[in-house]
Amino acid sequence: MPPPPLALIPPDVDVVEVRGTPTGDQLAGAEVLYVWDHRFADLAPVLRSADRLRWVHAASVGVNRLICPELAQHQITLTNSRGVFDISIAEWVLAAVLSFVKGLPDTLALQREHTWLYRTTGRLAGKRAAVVGTGSIGRAIADRLSRLDVHVTLVGRHESSDLTAVAAEVDILIAAVPLTAATTGLIDAEVLAALGPAGFVVNVGRGATVVEDELIEALRAGTIAGAALDVFEVEPLPAYSPLWAMPNVLVSPHMSGDYVGFEADMMGVFVDNLQRWLRGEKLHNIVDPDSGYVRG
Amino acid sequence: MPPPPLALIPPDVDVVEVRGTPTGDQLAGAEVLYVWDHRFADLAPVLRSADRLRWVHAASVGVNRLICPELAQHQITLTNSRGVFDISIAEWVLAAVLSFVKGLPDTLALQREHTWLYRTTGRLAGKRAAVVGTGSIGRAIADRLSRLDVHVTLVGRHESSDLTAVAAEVDILIAAVPLTAATTGLIDAEVLAALGPAGFVVNVGRGATVVEDELIEALRAGTIAGAALDVFEVEPLPAYSPLWAMPNVLVSPHMSGDYVGFEADMMGVFVDNLQRWLRGEKLHNIVDPDSGYVRG
Repeated sequence: MPPPPLALIPPDVDVVEVRGTPTGDQLAGAEVLYVWDHRFADLAPVLRSADRLRWVHAASVGVNRLICPELAQHQITLTNSRGVFDISIAEWVLAAVLSFVKGLPDTLALQREHTWLYRTTGRLAGKRAAVVGTGSIGRAIADRLSRLDVHVTLVGRHESSDLTAVAAEVDILIAAVPLTAATTGLIDAEVLAALGPAGFVVNVGRGATVVEDELIEALRAGTIAGAALDVFEVEPLPAYSPLWAMPNVLVSPHMSGDYVGFEADMMGVFVDNLQRWLRGEKLHNIVDPDSGYVRG
Repeated sequence: MPPPPLALIPPDVDVVEVRGTPTGDQLAGAEVLYVWDHRFADLAPVLRSADRLRWVHAASVGVNRLICPELAQHQITLTNSRGVFDISIAEWVLAAVLSFVKGLPDTLALQREHTWLYRTTGRLAGKRAAVVGTGSIGRAIADRLSRLDVHVTLVGRHESSDLTAVAAEVDILIAAVPLTAATTGLIDAEVLAALGPAGFVVNVGRGATVVEDELIEALRAGTIAGAALDVFEVEPLPAYSPLWAMPNVLVSPHMSGDYVGFEADMMGVFVDNLQRWLRGEKLHNIVDPDSGYVRG
């Protein structure tokens, strides 16, 4: 993560910049905690020791590492940065899917060998895709795929209980869900088998939504055709992972949403909420700690 | 080129299958010549020796190799396969442009080294593109870019006389023009300098529309940021071309339009025209031999 553009915070707000886990001194008197690093996973002890803390804002959309019982116990509001990444992630999904359909990784591999090898490739228009996740990112992905004449099924909480049936009807399966108990391991060997040998998987949510071992096995066996992954069970993806060397896989280092200038836009979401806070108004993007995402 | 699906031609039509340049015996009595291989360049002597030939149909959209004075001299109609490649080429352009904007070639290169390197990349929405060529392919490209919120300028014959001024206003310059006297060398050092160091060039028309040496120099010098090329001055691209090894270039072997199943669709365009011919009706997709493409 690049450093947060703190200069965007109004000058009358007292800011303590923290690197790593905040100490008791740093937290003393703090009412608001802005978690810039989406990998931060020590919120529970912070909430137990910070007696004046009322609001935690996450510079991310996925907040699975921040959800803990202490939020409700201490009546602390959690908000996220919903909306910042919608277009950039949707475009990254289009890039990954079109690159797959048009065989660009093969074209690049042949180019490295100075080999002119004519092939025919596919067309995206008319294909069928399922987007698992009906948050603002999932909807942006579905919208942009539809604009390119893909037949899109948007899969919410209720439909995801029968994801195998959905996968059997589509060519492309895209995961854009928060990591919750209900979405952990959602895409497994059975779903991949239903997707079939021409199927393509994209994950831009959280790694553990896909059972990674079963995905690797399906890619090896040709149960599915390929995958584009921006998130993994363990990040950074360990050097020993077979995913790195698979020719039908795109390994992307959790960057699908991060466009040049996103830091300022992300800080803008926080500052907008901070001004609401200072005026005593209701905050935007309040995460429901039970479901793990912003509702409605 | 794969073999043509001749079985789609009505059985009452007498078909002589020719490999390479047709002989006098093969041409004897032929009224219609279907040129399947877009690299065929020996039409003039064929027209001089085939006394009954009235119509030549090209299984391609670009017909620059077929244009010759003999067409008018012998009152022979030339038609092309306009329309078959519109969507597939437009999608290939989207794939190439999105892959560039999202840095997928770098992601793939880092993946080969098992290197997790977080970066920020760009967004396509809001960028400006110029599409040179107002035929059905150019219009399909412009349409699809517009659907992704790119600001598109469509550049026709009149505007292309000041392409430098157009290039100065855009981020992406896409060539989708037939090769004619007016379009040969259209994109040169001056146009590339106007496009500028963040600029990206795409060519899906004919190689000689771009002055290849000047493009190579601009890519080397950083005058522009990158290029995606499906066509080249000489095809196959010679092994000695520096384009192969340039990290900011996609070298694609003249396949942007060729999707799985295009052969049957291409033959369908011919058979539709053949049935018009047999009924004595006006043909579709008649190429104006003076301009080198289908007018209007």
